[in-house]
Amino acid sequence: MKYLLSVDGGGTKTEFCISDMQGKMLKSFFVGSSNYKSVGADKVYKHFNQGLEKIKKAFSVGIEDIAYSVWGISGCDSKNDYDIIEEQIVKLGFQRQQMYLCNDGVLAFYAQAYEPGIVIISGTGSIIIGVDKNGNVRRCGGWGYNISDIGSGYWIGNEALKQTLLYCDGCCEYSPLYDKVREYFNGKDFEELPYIITEVVDYYQVAKVASLVVELSKEKEGTAKEILKNGAHILARMTKEMYDKLEFNSSMKLNFVFSGGVLKNPVYEAILKEELDKKLPLINVKFSTQENPPAYGGIKLAQRILDRGDNNET
Amino acid sequence: MKYLLSVDGGGTKTEFCISDMQGKMLKSFFVGSSNYKSVGADKVYKHFNQGLEKIKKAFSVGIEDIAYSVWGISGCDSKNDYDIIEEQIVKLGFQRQQMYLCNDGVLAFYAQAYEPGIVIISGTGSIIIGVDKNGNVRRCGGWGYNISDIGSGYWIGNEALKQTLLYCDGCCEYSPLYDKVREYFNGKDFEELPYIITEVVDYYQVAKVASLVVELSKEKEGTAKEILKNGAHILARMTKEMYDKLEFNSSMKLNFVFSGGVLKNPVYEAILKEELDKKLPLINVKFSTQENPPAYGGIKLAQRILDRGDNNET
Repeated sequence: MKYLLSVDGGGTKTEFCISDMQGKMLKSFFVGSSNYKSVGADKVYKHFNQGLEKIKKAFSVGIEDIAYSVWGISGCDSKNDYDIIEEQIVKLGFQRQQMYLCNDGVLAFYAQAYEPGIVIISGTGSIIIGVDKNGNVRRCGGWGYNISDIGSGYWIGNEALKQTLLYCDGCCEYSPLYDKVREYFNGKDFEELPYIITEVVDYYQVAKVASLVVELSKEKEGTAKEILKNGAHILARMTKEMYDKLEFNSSMKLNFVFSGGVLKNPVYEAILKEELDKKLPLINVKFSTQENPPAYGGIKLAQRILDRGDNNET
Repeated sequence: MKYLLSVDGGGTKTEFCISDMQGKMLKSFFVGSSNYKSVGADKVYKHFNQGLEKIKKAFSVGIEDIAYSVWGISGCDSKNDYDIIEEQIVKLGFQRQQMYLCNDGVLAFYAQAYEPGIVIISGTGSIIIGVDKNGNVRRCGGWGYNISDIGSGYWIGNEALKQTLLYCDGCCEYSPLYDKVREYFNGKDFEELPYIITEVVDYYQVAKVASLVVELSKEKEGTAKEILKNGAHILARMTKEMYDKLEFNSSMKLNFVFSGGVLKNPVYEAILKEELDKKLPLINVKFSTQENPPAYGGIKLAQRILDRGDNNET
């Protein structure tokens, strides 16, 4: 019996998911980080190996039984990144025609849709990934939380904190957002609050502030809505750029997927749709929100590649 | 013989400067960091003690010979910060009526001017500090490079990188700034550049990009000038806020000091003056750029406090 393997590699954990050839998911196993930038290539190899061992133990499946494998690895961006990660996979014993390596964002797309289309991801960070009708992948944004990733959770939280600090310093009009931020950080007043905010070093904590912004924008609160609108505006600009790069047009049936913790919120989704509508012809675009796990997207992509016969091309 | 002591405490080094009662600087000694948040309070105490030992050795000066001491410590912001640092100074043997503790920005002001007035500091970070006619100090901004400190070197560099990445992703018009950034990071083209920028983690490196922006804005380059103008606009907004808080008015003779690496540049200074002019009556304001070392400001402030007799108030 042959199997498909999907690997969803993140900074803290990596999911190894195995399915039959019909795409029926059999089981998932979890191991450590696959971000070589933080743990080193040797550790990534070790984690990959642990994942395979777990599969081998549970199903008596060797690498030779895996018809195709898709590796969606977060932070897999530059040619150098690809080379380093591919090297680890090959070292495990995988043949090149048996594996496809991509950024984990591609999995988020296939979890919900088929090409051609675009996935807009806004979680802690943000990135836009487009896939043309031949499966060619391009990306836009996602260059890091503090200098890129506009419209992401970190970005939204950071904008909210920036505005709050300006308010504390008396440099802008009051908004209920500032009281929400103050309560969130347990600040007793706006005199004390900056001293608390200035000690925030964890960017996940900044990203969490985004939920306050989204919450308030439901109630049509001006400052909160303005922040989301600015973020969505730039995400839409990047999406338009991706659309043009991939030579999409209004006659093509396209799939747009919204993914990531922040974009799963209907309020932000609606604002982003409005912004997209200003820039793109959406007549043949089918929207969906990522609900299936990314590992499922990897299985679907593996099937797609086998169907297309892309795996024999190399 | 009696002496004055000025301590200019930074994150990497601390200057102990001793002068005679007329303010004639006798000698400076350097010891390690006085930022307790990075090295711990015990280390700060140790460094302070080393500074005093050096003075003792060179001049046979004990604490009892120091008529007054001014401690301008970077990162000395909250009441908690003050309490912790003051505790170390008292532990050294200083009497409370023999010492004045403040943020190091106050030293930058007195290095160049006397109260009442405002010092606008823009180096890697930014902060605005006002001193009223009685020597009372207030601050605005300076809450951290990634969520505050608008108009600082880090902020300017970050804006430039943000714009450059948008250009690399095809999301904005070309500006010569982007080629300067590309050359600075040794990127061979704009395809490769984002992969280089995304690996920048050192915020000093981001702050250094500010010098490219300042350089280009001299040549009236649009994007570079726009970035500086936005930064200066918010610095001016904060300065106006400080002006109002301290109840300054156009009939008062005020001293405004520009300080910090970025603001020492005449181009940025000129842009900031323009922005200030839009918001404030500058008729009685005397501008100066900080040229004297901050430790000199500490000596001048010590004299000022003795003249006013503030030291006997407590």
